[in-house]
Formats: sequence, C-alpha cells, structure tokens
Amino acid sequence: MALDRLIESIVKLQNPTVAGLDPVLDYVPGFIKEKSFTQYGETLEGAAAAILAFNKGLIDALCGVVPAVKPQCAYYELYGWHGVKALHDTINYAKEKGMFVITDGKRNDIGSTMQAYAAAHLGTVTVGERTFVPFGGDALTVNPYLGSDGINPLLETCRAQDKGIFVLVKTSNPSSGELQNQIFEGGETLYGTVGRLCEQWGEGLPGKYGYSGVGAVVGATYPAQLAELRRDLPHTFFLVPGYGAQGGGAKDVAAAFDQNGLGAVVNASRSIMTAWKKSGVPETEYAKAAAEEAKRMRDEIISETGAVTLNKTNG
Amino acid sequence: MALDRLIESIVKLQNPTVAGLDPVLDYVPGFIKEKSFTQYGETLEGAAAAILAFNKGLIDALCGVVPAVKPQCAYYELYGWHGVKALHDTINYAKEKGMFVITDGKRNDIGSTMQAYAAAHLGTVTVGERTFVPFGGDALTVNPYLGSDGINPLLETCRAQDKGIFVLVKTSNPSSGELQNQIFEGGETLYGTVGRLCEQWGEGLPGKYGYSGVGAVVGATYPAQLAELRRDLPHTFFLVPGYGAQGGGAKDVAAAFDQNGLGAVVNASRSIMTAWKKSGVPETEYAKAAAEEAKRMRDEIISETGAVTLNKTNG
Repeated sequence: MALDRLIESIVKLQNPTVAGLDPVLDYVPGFIKEKSFTQYGETLEGAAAAILAFNKGLIDALCGVVPAVKPQCAYYELYGWHGVKALHDTINYAKEKGMFVITDGKRNDIGSTMQAYAAAHLGTVTVGERTFVPFGGDALTVNPYLGSDGINPLLETCRAQDKGIFVLVKTSNPSSGELQNQIFEGGETLYGTVGRLCEQWGEGLPGKYGYSGVGAVVGATYPAQLAELRRDLPHTFFLVPGYGAQGGGAKDVAAAFDQNGLGAVVNASRSIMTAWKKSGVPETEYAKAAAEEAKRMRDEIISETGAVTLNKTNG
Repeated sequence: MALDRLIESIVKLQNPTVAGLDPVLDYVPGFIKEKSFTQYGETLEGAAAAILAFNKGLIDALCGVVPAVKPQCAYYELYGWHGVKALHDTINYAKEKGMFVITDGKRNDIGSTMQAYAAAHLGTVTVGERTFVPFGGDALTVNPYLGSDGINPLLETCRAQDKGIFVLVKTSNPSSGELQNQIFEGGETLYGTVGRLCEQWGEGLPGKYGYSGVGAVVGATYPAQLAELRRDLPHTFFLVPGYGAQGGGAKDVAAAFDQNGLGAVVNASRSIMTAWKKSGVPETEYAKAAAEEAKRMRDEIISETGAVTLNKTNG
C-alpha cells in the first residue's frame, strides 16, 4: 500500500513531516517572477511558470530532508489550466526527486464520477490504445460527506496502483466543530463516525507496518481529539495540518504519534515557503531558507516524539 | 445574485432543467474522436479536443432549450491539464451562447485556500497589473463538511462577482444516508443541519425572487426529503441530481418546486449526452438527439409542476 512507501521514507529521513506547496504569487521571490513575466508576460502562463520554477527550487532543497510534498490544488486552479499544468509538472518533478506526493484536492463525488477523480489523481486513463497518467500523485485527500459511495471507487484504484487516500475527519479550522463535533443519538460525534469508517474502509488495504492505505486528516489545532483518534483508530495514518501558522505546536501534534514515533505526518506550508522572507536572507536563497525551516520543524517534532522506528508486528 | 439570472432564464425557456456535461469518451461519437485523434493522436490532447468538440455541438443544440449546463470537473481532470483546458473552453463557449454554467467541482477547504477556489471558479485573479478570469463559471457546487470557514470565503466572491453556490445537503446516492441521515442529539439530521445553515449563509446574498445565492444539492432519489427540505428552506434554490439514470422520475422531483413551479433545477447528464445511442439516429445527429431528449425531459417535468412563473413578493 502506498502509505507504506511514505512510512519507509519517514523512517529513512527521520522526519514525519510534509511540505505543503501552496504557491501564491506573493510567496515567490521577485527574481523568479521577473524571469517568468519577461518570458510569458504578466499572464496566467507567466504566473504558472513562476510557480513551477519556485516549486522546483523548493523540491531540490527539500528532497533529502522532507519525505513528502502536498500541493494544494486550489492554488494551481487559481491560475486556470496553465496553473493546473504547473500542478502536473510539480507532481512529476517531486516524484523524479523521490518524494511522496499527497495531492490535496479534497475531492468527493460518487460512483463513476469518483472513479474518474481516482483515475485522474491516482491512476491512469486509456485513450484509444494508449494509457496515460493524468496527474500521478501517490495519495489524494478526500471528503467523506457522501459516504461509502464516494470512497469505494478510490479503494479499487489504490489497490491496483499502490496508492493511498486521506479522508477529512477532524479539520484544523475554527468552525470544524460546527458539523464535525456534533454528537449523534448513539453518542458518537460526526468526526468519530467518519474515523470509524476510515478503519473499516482501510480493512481492504492493509499495510506492512500496521497502517492501512486509508489515512485521516486530523488538525494539529485540536490535540485532545488527536489523542482520542490516535487511540481509537490504530490502523489509520494521520495527515496533520494546522502546524505553525494556524497555531498548532510540537507538543500538540505529539498526540498524533504512536509509541514508535509513527502514525502521522505533519504538514507545514506557509512557514516553509515564506522562510526566506522571515529569515532575512537574499531572495535567491529562498530554497535554502525553506530547507533550514523544514529541519527546524523536523527537530522540534522529533524532540517530542523521539526517533521513528518501524514495528512490523503492529499490524 | 447569480441565481436570479438562472431563475430568469428558467422562466424564459419554461424549463427548470440543467444539462450535465460529463463527457466520458465512450459517449463521444466516433466521427468526432477520429477527427481529433487524426489531428492530435491518441493522446490526452486528442481526448480533450474530442470532448470539447462534442460539448460544443451539444451546447449549440441545447442553448435555446435548456437554461444551464453543469460540467463535472472529474471528467475533465481525467484527461489531465489538457482536459482542464477543455473545461475552461467549454465553460466559455456555453457562456457565449447565453447559458448559465454550474461548475460541478464539490470543492471544499478553508480560509485563503477556499478563497483561491472561489477566485478560480467564480472570480478573478491578478497577475502583476492584469486581471484574469481563470475558469468563469456562474455557480460552483461545494461540500459543507468543514463548516462556515469553508463557505464564507465563497460568499464574498459571490457578492462581488454576482455568482452563486450549491452546497451538498442530501445527495442522490444509495449511501448518502450513512452520514447525512444520522440524527444529532438535538433531533436534527446532518442534512437538515446543513440545510438550515444554507438558509443562514444565504441571508447575506438575498435574491429578487425569494431565493438566495446559496443553493443546495438535494437528490431526486429521495422525494420525501426533497419535500421536507422544500418546506423547511424557503429561500434555498435546489440543484437536483439523480433524475433518469439514477432512478428519480418527474413525480419524484415535483416535490422540489414551489407553488410557482420555481425553486429547483433538475439535472440530467447521461440521458442527454447518450440520447443518440438510444434513439438509433446516425451519430452525426447526436446533438439533435440530445435536444430532443432535453425537450422530452422538460415536458415531463413541466407536466407535473405546471408553468414556471416569477413571484417577486415571495422574498
């Protein structure tokens, strides 16, 4: 299962984090934008070229430090189909550099439409007699509101293509409780119900290290729920947003991990992409500044969780 | 508000339906595919060209009959960024022909990321000193799992750009009840809670005809819930999937409408796009067959609901 590859990479690099690639133009150093705009004009194509060049620099600097990247689809769609081409090229560049790619699209639909999303982001598509990889991520974030009809089509693709998914369970935003924390008549919360379903959906995608191919998104900003869900969902790997800019700290996310320092990957986007602005280095050193920030975050988290080890008997 | 434009078009054409544009290659007549593959090869670019040509033919035939089209993003992402370019071109062609475009992306996220989705699909983006329209739909389907933090950023864009949204409330699929029908401790279902929030979110986007800019997706396959929600959500316009192929009929969807024959737009995708296969006409007449099927569906629904009239005093 694809999350096994992520886990192996986390252990190898001793780094349970993922770098979010949410490249708004404001984050891109001026010298990159100038070059792209000179070549393509102040156009969507120019913006997409700037973003791609920015991402490639980040990936070059991060690929020996951080096991995974998480491009957020919204920031690519923002620049139209040119931006979506930059998403494709970013995913493929990161994979060439050996990184695990979590496509953050929070996609959701049913039946053949969900199959189309699964094929688009994790699988292949056939045109005539030829087969293509439309985007080629290793895992996709998905939204559970439509129930099993929205998840099962993904599981088939994950099994066939060695890919994984992360289902939104308890998100990091202030209003996440508006629906997710509400308690059903049986006593279970909505997020607890979705978490339980993740364990069920994951049964068909067992992993070598005790964690299935069906992960869950659980925000760093709710440490009590992180701890509760870690206890209740022993086979579900967590993708943890909300670290840094949104207020979650290393002590908060420690609850997401098991006794082996495994069980979760913590995302940071803005703090890594904009490290060059905060550190005061010349903008041409943005990638180096990003890697320094990624190392600082790694050390901060590892100091709370301890070294990451594989435990094959956990499954 | 953008849903006013949809409503006016429904009344003008006396047709409360929307044609889904979910163009899987199997639906595209051979002569279109041959021409595209001759020009671009059996490639993602060739597939995207075939889909766009197919869509343009459908739009030409439907634009005087059906007020709106609903392209489903998944079927465009399936063909990579070339497919996403075909989505852009399809949206713009439909708008040129005077159709209202509902981009069916079921997007969801929070804060600045949701703002990026809003700008991408309903708004504009600035690059340097120039402003662009990335995709240009009139309304976007969205998923409510993240709560108000995922909806508020859309409302700002809708207000500024005269656009609307449709929030998933009760979906048409068999497992929609798995989460949506569950009853919270206060006695309200999850879908009922989301429906109530739609009324709240819509307060900031009031429309001329009693319906706000915040619509709801409610499936044709659950007529009892359609009737209940129509009663409980007097200012919320419904987008109703599940007609035809999924089993919902004209009597089922009649519950979605108010006493003026307003309040909902019913989607059909497969039955319209594949009408040429079922009717046995030559494949070159696929567009005419689609228009005939659209008229049949219109008549079937109007025979249950009666003529559609505006009621400006309803708000």
